[in-house]
Amino acid sequence: MKNRLYFKSDNKKIQKEAFEAIRAEQNHIGYYTLPEQDISSILTYCNTIPENVETIAVIGIGGSSLGAKAVYEFIKPVKSLARKLYFFESTDPINITTLLSKFDIKKTHFLIISKSGNTVETFSIYKYIYSLQSDASAYTFITDPGSPLEKYAKEIQASVLYLPNNVGGRFSVLSTVGLVPLALCGIDIQALLNGAKTIKESFFNAGYLKDTLLKKAVYYAKHHTQYHINCIFAYSETLKYFCEWYVQLWGESLGKYQRHSAFNVGLTPIGLIGPKDQHSFLQLIMEGTRDKSVTFIKIEDFHDNISIPDITLPHLEALDSLNDLPFSKLINMQCDSVIEALEAQEDIPLDTISISDVTETNIGSLIFYYELLTSLVGELIDVNTYDQPGVEAGKIILKKKLS
Amino acid sequence: MKNRLYFKSDNKKIQKEAFEAIRAEQNHIGYYTLPEQDISSILTYCNTIPENVETIAVIGIGGSSLGAKAVYEFIKPVKSLARKLYFFESTDPINITTLLSKFDIKKTHFLIISKSGNTVETFSIYKYIYSLQSDASAYTFITDPGSPLEKYAKEIQASVLYLPNNVGGRFSVLSTVGLVPLALCGIDIQALLNGAKTIKESFFNAGYLKDTLLKKAVYYAKHHTQYHINCIFAYSETLKYFCEWYVQLWGESLGKYQRHSAFNVGLTPIGLIGPKDQHSFLQLIMEGTRDKSVTFIKIEDFHDNISIPDITLPHLEALDSLNDLPFSKLINMQCDSVIEALEAQEDIPLDTISISDVTETNIGSLIFYYELLTSLVGELIDVNTYDQPGVEAGKIILKKKLS
Repeated sequence: MKNRLYFKSDNKKIQKEAFEAIRAEQNHIGYYTLPEQDISSILTYCNTIPENVETIAVIGIGGSSLGAKAVYEFIKPVKSLARKLYFFESTDPINITTLLSKFDIKKTHFLIISKSGNTVETFSIYKYIYSLQSDASAYTFITDPGSPLEKYAKEIQASVLYLPNNVGGRFSVLSTVGLVPLALCGIDIQALLNGAKTIKESFFNAGYLKDTLLKKAVYYAKHHTQYHINCIFAYSETLKYFCEWYVQLWGESLGKYQRHSAFNVGLTPIGLIGPKDQHSFLQLIMEGTRDKSVTFIKIEDFHDNISIPDITLPHLEALDSLNDLPFSKLINMQCDSVIEALEAQEDIPLDTISISDVTETNIGSLIFYYELLTSLVGELIDVNTYDQPGVEAGKIILKKKLS
Repeated sequence: MKNRLYFKSDNKKIQKEAFEAIRAEQNHIGYYTLPEQDISSILTYCNTIPENVETIAVIGIGGSSLGAKAVYEFIKPVKSLARKLYFFESTDPINITTLLSKFDIKKTHFLIISKSGNTVETFSIYKYIYSLQSDASAYTFITDPGSPLEKYAKEIQASVLYLPNNVGGRFSVLSTVGLVPLALCGIDIQALLNGAKTIKESFFNAGYLKDTLLKKAVYYAKHHTQYHINCIFAYSETLKYFCEWYVQLWGESLGKYQRHSAFNVGLTPIGLIGPKDQHSFLQLIMEGTRDKSVTFIKIEDFHDNISIPDITLPHLEALDSLNDLPFSKLINMQCDSVIEALEAQEDIPLDTISISDVTETNIGSLIFYYELLTSLVGELIDVNTYDQPGVEAGKIILKKKLS
């Protein structure tokens, strides 16, 4: 993974302080240790799932689904996977019925993922599915040790796996939450962790990314009242769900009351896919208010060498300059052209991230890069990156309505 | 369709001026007349496509695909459709290969949609597909009369349909651009237009929506420097692609240099799906910077009466309050709870749009409502709602790179 910044950011002192704060955080925030975990128990568990299980269905929402979905949808188009993976993450009855029509429930293993065991969406869906499939061996529960959900799972004699300590939902993709469904589908989870580890080591052991990540974080934090909309512009459809994962990670971590002020701050994430969104959101970036930063993500080699054929269409000869061009070259030229056009504006903070190809290692790197960046910016804008108190009010009102 | 505003907006004089400006615009902006069009020629054309064609594939990008996709993905889960519809809208080679593996190219009719005939994405993909299927009867071209693309289509003896006058891409879903692919799949396009017509008449003939739309537009425009992020929070997965259509419509129309100033303005669209995004973006709305308005979209009746079964899970008795609840009631209770929680904040502009159910009429209404709102806000913040000069720079650079 390479990361090039198109803006200047100095402030060595602030960079050093942010680095020290993050280094200290490793003692009590759990996600930092995930890249080094031993996955043998997960692989052993996976071997207990019968081979005739064709489908894995996750019943979970937010942090319990977005990470695994991001990795699965990234890898799926380029790798022949062992099983299909579906996500039940909505109480929309049309969605539930549609999803259930896509697979054979008798050949499906369900993963119910919930820290506490009281997520309304997860358990309303679980109850419904349980009424259709009451065989406890079709279910695995991933929850906190000692939770009522663990007790329930043990009572019905279903499998239970545990969430690691001090890892919040949106930072949990590299824990059991993401690794179990992904491993069950044949995704190489060790490679995923290795990709994350490369970034971790580069950052904490003064590798090339330490300097870049610190500069970027300090710039984003310093200018957070001006450039408070942070776009990812990813040039591949494979990164669509990575963008959705990023939206949760960034928005839920950085939209908060400040710890030491009475005021709310917030950085708004936007996920864009190129070249499609050149025909949608790009106009707003180019000519709209100067409140947006843009990070381009490029894939250097798509390993899918289809090219534009060398044919001339009568009356459309102007298009002949495309002939013989591999699509993977074209899409990256399109990205470079937009970068150049935005760079000429001079007041839009840009950077580019390049990954070599569509692999588990590279998505693992992207994930850990964004987790570190989120932690750094959260520290610098003085919010608690890891809580989400703002979502409680709606839950309490719902509870009242239900009772 | 109902629309309730939770904020106050007076300024009768400005409302009246905006209304007059939009009424005058009808003389030269084409989309206003689309609801009344005669669709018989489209239906006649559709009958020329052989019955053994199973799949329709649109090759088009931005305004040439987002509208049809929004309607198709909305209706698909509730209606048994005559044909499947796919969209080629990316030069990502992995995406092209994946899409082509999903259908039988010999049983597919391709619609190539491009105003000018020089859209890089559309024609690089078309050339590639043409190298796999060179039978001209498998293609229909939708373009401007007199364009080089029309000449090409006639030369190879393929079908040609025309874009209406003065209708920009992002306002074109109710023209041939959207209606042809939708009609070919068995979507009731007359109902779609009727839904749009209801909104048009209500607005222009002093119906209940005139007042609401004007109040909302004036409020958004007056406060556009504070509330410059405008979220749709739609409580149904069926509206996911409607949100993508909205993002293009809103962002590309309203992110501009002002007509009579040297400065750029912009309203940033965000599409959210509930309840999923309660576990993602909601925290940022609740506690982040006060720069966001939120429009909730609710579906009153999902006509899919699945309920949460009346079962008690040992140790999870707290969830019994969900028992016997239809999912369609639960999802709307979740929406109402979030509205109440946000309303209590007092400084977040909210409104709700309710549609009765998932039908062509209702999505037609939603589309026209948002088109009118966009036109009104564009007029009020003094931008040219209908152009997109900001996307040209990147195209020119690409052309240079290609030659």
